[in-house]
Amino acid sequence: MQLKETPSGQAISVTHERIKPYIHRTPILTNTYIDQLAGCNIHFKCENFQKVGAFKARGGVNAILSLSEEEVKRGVATHSSGNHAQAVAYAAGIVAAKAYIVMPESATAIKKAAVEDYGGEVITCDSSLEARELTLQRVVEKTGAVFLHPYNDYRVIAGQATCAKELLEDLEMTPDVILTPVGGGGLLSGTALSAHYFSDHTKVIGTEPEGADDAWRSFTTGQLIPQTAPDTIADGLRTSLGEKPFGIIQKHVSDILLVNDKEIVSAMRLVWERMKIIIEPSCAVPVAALLKNRDRFAGQHVAIVFSGGNVDLTNLPFN
Amino acid sequence: MQLKETPSGQAISVTHERIKPYIHRTPILTNTYIDQLAGCNIHFKCENFQKVGAFKARGGVNAILSLSEEEVKRGVATHSSGNHAQAVAYAAGIVAAKAYIVMPESATAIKKAAVEDYGGEVITCDSSLEARELTLQRVVEKTGAVFLHPYNDYRVIAGQATCAKELLEDLEMTPDVILTPVGGGGLLSGTALSAHYFSDHTKVIGTEPEGADDAWRSFTTGQLIPQTAPDTIADGLRTSLGEKPFGIIQKHVSDILLVNDKEIVSAMRLVWERMKIIIEPSCAVPVAALLKNRDRFAGQHVAIVFSGGNVDLTNLPFN
Repeated sequence: MQLKETPSGQAISVTHERIKPYIHRTPILTNTYIDQLAGCNIHFKCENFQKVGAFKARGGVNAILSLSEEEVKRGVATHSSGNHAQAVAYAAGIVAAKAYIVMPESATAIKKAAVEDYGGEVITCDSSLEARELTLQRVVEKTGAVFLHPYNDYRVIAGQATCAKELLEDLEMTPDVILTPVGGGGLLSGTALSAHYFSDHTKVIGTEPEGADDAWRSFTTGQLIPQTAPDTIADGLRTSLGEKPFGIIQKHVSDILLVNDKEIVSAMRLVWERMKIIIEPSCAVPVAALLKNRDRFAGQHVAIVFSGGNVDLTNLPFN
Repeated sequence: MQLKETPSGQAISVTHERIKPYIHRTPILTNTYIDQLAGCNIHFKCENFQKVGAFKARGGVNAILSLSEEEVKRGVATHSSGNHAQAVAYAAGIVAAKAYIVMPESATAIKKAAVEDYGGEVITCDSSLEARELTLQRVVEKTGAVFLHPYNDYRVIAGQATCAKELLEDLEMTPDVILTPVGGGGLLSGTALSAHYFSDHTKVIGTEPEGADDAWRSFTTGQLIPQTAPDTIADGLRTSLGEKPFGIIQKHVSDILLVNDKEIVSAMRLVWERMKIIIEPSCAVPVAALLKNRDRFAGQHVAIVFSGGNVDLTNLPFN
């Protein structure tokens, strides 16, 4: 069943029950050293430990479990070079649906292998958005598969919303603010919805790389501005903000903060060295934003969604 | 108070209560993918999340908290290029004792900085064992500091034993076997003692790099054979087995398994990629040994102590 409008609190709760058997209730970690550095109390919701190594499993599973029997028979298709590809392949496996994943040639071998490990069929194409969309269109025409958008879909947004729902349920106190990265906007809009429905005072703030600041520009101007030439190490956030997430973000998000790539790598390194856990560059963006804006969050309870931990170990940004 | 003999079960319990306020009760993680690969049920005790990033905090804290007031005033000294250095510096800070840490010039800047961050004083010297021991001797003569051996000390062994004690308390079932790395033998002997006292059937097996196999040779021949020219990526295990740990290992350890560096790096990469947590090469040794000996552990509940997570991010073994 396709969700036709912004998910209600009840819809998010139903979604959570539906996807629970197929996702991890990820842990929330703390780190004394980083707290001291930032001057506040930080609660890290570790979606890097989620199935497929990223929060995307939530939205992917919900979208797949919302399909009709007839749609399951047709199979699903998407294009992605990253975590959404794995999420759809993983989720399709749950209902034994075929998953056709269009990936750019430039995607790393390990990412392609991961999709195949989950039983997905990889179709490679040129790296341009046009080539990806065209290839996807051909796949859909040929196979009849159902296209699953990575974020411009209320079922996906409802799935991503379950992450902040867990966070609010599992924390002993209500956080003053939740920070997430923003790329297409699925995680940020879902988080904002859950904070709106399930907390009486938690603010939600998006964090974005300066080199892919379309969400910030859209948020600031009130006009949806696409990302044309992204230039950032945060590969998960190079995409354009979706229209459905944007509507929710305009209504329920307090602010969007920008950081540069140097700040992102430095925050990523801090987490690797001090927390001994692996986060990907996109995932370090809220940490960088927090450290850049210490005064704003001083003494507060700040929750950060660690969005994912899929990195290419042979190509790390440390030197 | 110096422990004069092999710690009893009661001594380990007392040690655990003493050090509890200063150490983390580290989590035990599981991973479906690695279980399938290995053909058994693995429980990873994550001492890479311990204070100072390694189990060494346990022994270091216990040794320091066992000092007399007069000894605390004199301060403590040790030589180490690795985790013991940080552990002593951290532990000394608890009782506000001076900590003099002799480190080889070759130790990475980050390791020296970590010791200094904990308030320790770093004295550098040549990398040879002779230079390190001579420098330490001079420091002790000049300052009157108490030398804390990294493993040939029953207080340290009792501290390391608390790790397996927690493991046995926190697991829902009794594991069939616990695997740990073996270098100086503090962790392996402590683990063997806790399994002996607190489990009715858990075996303990040491795992060691082929390029530093003195524990295996000592165990096999019944003669303590020093490590003369270690050659392994597992930098924490290049040291010689201590005489006190050896006595315990002879009595309470079932076997020692060997792996080569290629197997170590491959196991390390598997854990980084699949578990999204950072372990150091020494810490990957039991994983490598398990994967090399699948038949032996088939269907069993296997606990692995993840000994530490301190790596130089600018010099990783992946390519």
